[in-house]
Amino acid sequence: MAGYRLHCIGASGNSYKIALYLTCANLEWEPVGFDFTGGMMRDDGWRAETNAMGEIPVLEADGISLSQSGAILTWLADTTGHFAVPDELRFEAQRWMYFDNHKFTNNFAMHRFQRVLTAEPVHPAVLEFLRNRLEASCAIVDKHLETRRFVVGDAPSYVDFSMVGYYFYPTAETGVDLAVEYPHIDAWRQRIAALPGWKPPYEMISVGSQLPVRTV
Amino acid sequence: MAGYRLHCIGASGNSYKIALYLTCANLEWEPVGFDFTGGMMRDDGWRAETNAMGEIPVLEADGISLSQSGAILTWLADTTGHFAVPDELRFEAQRWMYFDNHKFTNNFAMHRFQRVLTAEPVHPAVLEFLRNRLEASCAIVDKHLETRRFVVGDAPSYVDFSMVGYYFYPTAETGVDLAVEYPHIDAWRQRIAALPGWKPPYEMISVGSQLPVRTV
Repeated sequence: MAGYRLHCIGASGNSYKIALYLTCANLEWEPVGFDFTGGMMRDDGWRAETNAMGEIPVLEADGISLSQSGAILTWLADTTGHFAVPDELRFEAQRWMYFDNHKFTNNFAMHRFQRVLTAEPVHPAVLEFLRNRLEASCAIVDKHLETRRFVVGDAPSYVDFSMVGYYFYPTAETGVDLAVEYPHIDAWRQRIAALPGWKPPYEMISVGSQLPVRTV
Repeated sequence: MAGYRLHCIGASGNSYKIALYLTCANLEWEPVGFDFTGGMMRDDGWRAETNAMGEIPVLEADGISLSQSGAILTWLADTTGHFAVPDELRFEAQRWMYFDNHKFTNNFAMHRFQRVLTAEPVHPAVLEFLRNRLEASCAIVDKHLETRRFVVGDAPSYVDFSMVGYYFYPTAETGVDLAVEYPHIDAWRQRIAALPGWKPPYEMISVGSQLPVRTV
């Protein structure tokens, strides 16, 4: 494998998931900068050429172009073997991957984005709606991790990289103090942070445009 | 295979996705009624016994209990071969499955739920936020289907069953007139509705509690 090219920005936790996985798996990769604030992802040309879904991350590998972080992480685990799960845990792993994309990452990331990353403040009712959603999904994962070191099985897997990504952004952005509110999620992310190669999001990915973070 | 047991209600499009797949694949299944309005999914005993994620559908099969509709549909296609995709399209199929769980179903279903299925009307700002999100993801899929009969490949696949589920609820619930707003999505769902066995959601699943639908 000559290496991977990742279209990404530091503020995108879905980009960071892939960057963190590749780094901890000791695979060669290079970041490709990206003009998020310039609206590139809404550009028809960019969509036609890079990703019709209008999203990053996009991973170039083996001459193909891959998108959707959940599908990418599953593919990486399948093709490289790094942080894969045993066959008998495959369904359980996929179940958590879908829960993550459907709720755990989604609710947490939407709340953070609307809280500090939009150009203008959003209506408080929207923030409250999103906050309630993230609390429901965080409570489920916090309880799950009360008696487990990792989400699936006894070792870190691609599922952990998917689920943990957004939980490394600063509390000033997320509005959630994990140590106080969700201690088992906090202990779990510290286990991930102890993996060789780990860096926080904005150190891991310094290319591309930085999103201005509003102060709340 | 002796048959499948599906914990489901008619108002749950994620339940309907599985019911529709099993029916069109001509597989034996029976519905298990469910007291959604009674809060059963928030009950600790039910969560411990049936699904810690607090969600339906749950599919019992081969003595195991499966949840998350995306993971269930992938597993059904893998284990039965019905509506599976060729190996070379597997990544593309999974990419759309994640896009569906992350956005296409999620945005559309959240908007419908908040619009007519909550006990009390929600703040208009929340509905507007969700409406904008569904429009963004519907536009991407409508464009994708402009030149395709099905989401992936030339035949209906498990991906279509996942993505189409919520798009069969009445416009009075969804607030979206597909024929007018997203004609390619509308034509695609008519191709799915032409499959032998197809029925609309509340006819397919009549067990369990009915959710009261507010009039808007």
